Amino acid sequence: MEFWYSESYSDNVKLSIKVDKQLHGEQSDFQRIDFFESKEFGRFFTLDGLMMATEKDEFIYHDMITHTALAVNPGIRNVLVIGAGDGGTVRELTRYKNIEKIHMVEIDERVVRLCEEYLPLTASKLKDSRVSLYFQDGLEFVKKSQEKYDLIIVDSTDPIGPGEGLFTMDFYTDCYNLLSDEGILINQHESPYYDKDRKELIRTRQKIKKIFEISRVYQAHIPTYPSGHWLFGFASKKYDPVKDIKADEWNNMGLETKYYNTDLHVGSFALPTYVNELMEEEL
Amino acid sequence: MEFWYSESYSDNVKLSIKVDKQLHGEQSDFQRIDFFESKEFGRFFTLDGLMMATEKDEFIYHDMITHTALAVNPGIRNVLVIGAGDGGTVRELTRYKNIEKIHMVEIDERVVRLCEEYLPLTASKLKDSRVSLYFQDGLEFVKKSQEKYDLIIVDSTDPIGPGEGLFTMDFYTDCYNLLSDEGILINQHESPYYDKDRKELIRTRQKIKKIFEISRVYQAHIPTYPSGHWLFGFASKKYDPVKDIKADEWNNMGLETKYYNTDLHVGSFALPTYVNELMEEEL
Repeated sequence: MEFWYSESYSDNVKLSIKVDKQLHGEQSDFQRIDFFESKEFGRFFTLDGLMMATEKDEFIYHDMITHTALAVNPGIRNVLVIGAGDGGTVRELTRYKNIEKIHMVEIDERVVRLCEEYLPLTASKLKDSRVSLYFQDGLEFVKKSQEKYDLIIVDSTDPIGPGEGLFTMDFYTDCYNLLSDEGILINQHESPYYDKDRKELIRTRQKIKKIFEISRVYQAHIPTYPSGHWLFGFASKKYDPVKDIKADEWNNMGLETKYYNTDLHVGSFALPTYVNELMEEEL
Repeated sequence: MEFWYSESYSDNVKLSIKVDKQLHGEQSDFQRIDFFESKEFGRFFTLDGLMMATEKDEFIYHDMITHTALAVNPGIRNVLVIGAGDGGTVRELTRYKNIEKIHMVEIDERVVRLCEEYLPLTASKLKDSRVSLYFQDGLEFVKKSQEKYDLIIVDSTDPIGPGEGLFTMDFYTDCYNLLSDEGILINQHESPYYDKDRKELIRTRQKIKKIFEISRVYQAHIPTYPSGHWLFGFASKKYDPVKDIKADEWNNMGLETKYYNTDLHVGSFALPTYVNELMEEEL
């Protein structure tokens, strides 16, 4: 038997992965959740048919969504994570001794519980004593919270479905207000390559640029995401992600990482010309 | 009717592209050659079923395989190009007024003739007066040539099939001997991500490191190549590709490029940790 999972990147392109076995599939209150076992990528899971994380390369996404901010401000203590149900972002954050508090707000508890069962590699640190889990809408959480955070990471699905509100002006404004004066906002930013992703990227940029003093974009090679060319946003009140990197300080911590390093950090903010031009577009 | 072209990245992963029409298909003396028309990528062509170039993103590959060397040594005059049958590399080289002579050695004349017919976008400058076309084996050409080149670009297919000899110790040694004291060798280096490509990358590195004084690797996002994470080698007798970049001089030429820029140039040599580690592996 040949059993293939396919993800469409547009009406005219798709990536297909040979699957040994579907481990689980369910419709939660929010979305369709599936786990698969494959030879090429080990276990992987999808939400509404879109790739979220694979055992083979989740390290790339999770390295890039966490360490970049921590190398700019190694003094970060309080972190808010929105989305990130597989736990990989929290796992990376718990490696920092300075971090005292991690609030993780995930709308869909089923994603967390299933990742604990099927992806223990990413969900391994959700029981760390510094982590508090909130199963609620991130949009409402940031509207009501009275906390101050040094870092907010928006590790969401795409702007269609349950993640939609996490790409709005209101949401970014609330995030800004919850951040300390040294605050940094990191969010996954889609891809510049296929039409649908590119449009979302442009819309996201327009909003964040209006709210934050400093707003930059960095890139990574994530072969299991559409086009493999994935972007992240770095927005902050005072830190420039390149000029203000504390490379020595970060390297002295001795964290081992398979993708991230401080040279790559600087390099990742140098974008192709066509991507720089997209950033200036208006929709 | 649904008509899909698929390329297997391993036994367990494939990318598929919806095709409007096959424009041409033939078996030459060397390989299978196909041209397709598609909505997503415009026209594209494949050799032995592997993607070579698409109208949508050939600019990425051709920018990165040419401009990087020219920004390190804008005084380059004599260039040898091996492979590169679609003409895109030569097209970019002809934009430099300093360049006096371009020898292009392509084993398969049919690739050139068919690209002239079906991909005029890439093959547009093959009749430039500075260009000489040699339809012969690059391996033999470099063994017999008495020329001196400032730049050799190896724009080959993968190390399986007609391109195989272009990944050998003998070939790299002959290239070294044809290079001037300021000489630079650029070659496409496969991808670090899927097993087969990764092994070829490691083998290539081992050889080039033994021959050239300076040898570095740089990366680009090429969504239509396996994994989208593609590497190039920069080897030279005296120039370091990062320390010796003449960014102002290159920018003053005023060349418009959609992917390459001098910030990206520097950034592209900062590789992920797992790729740096691969470079040190022995097979």
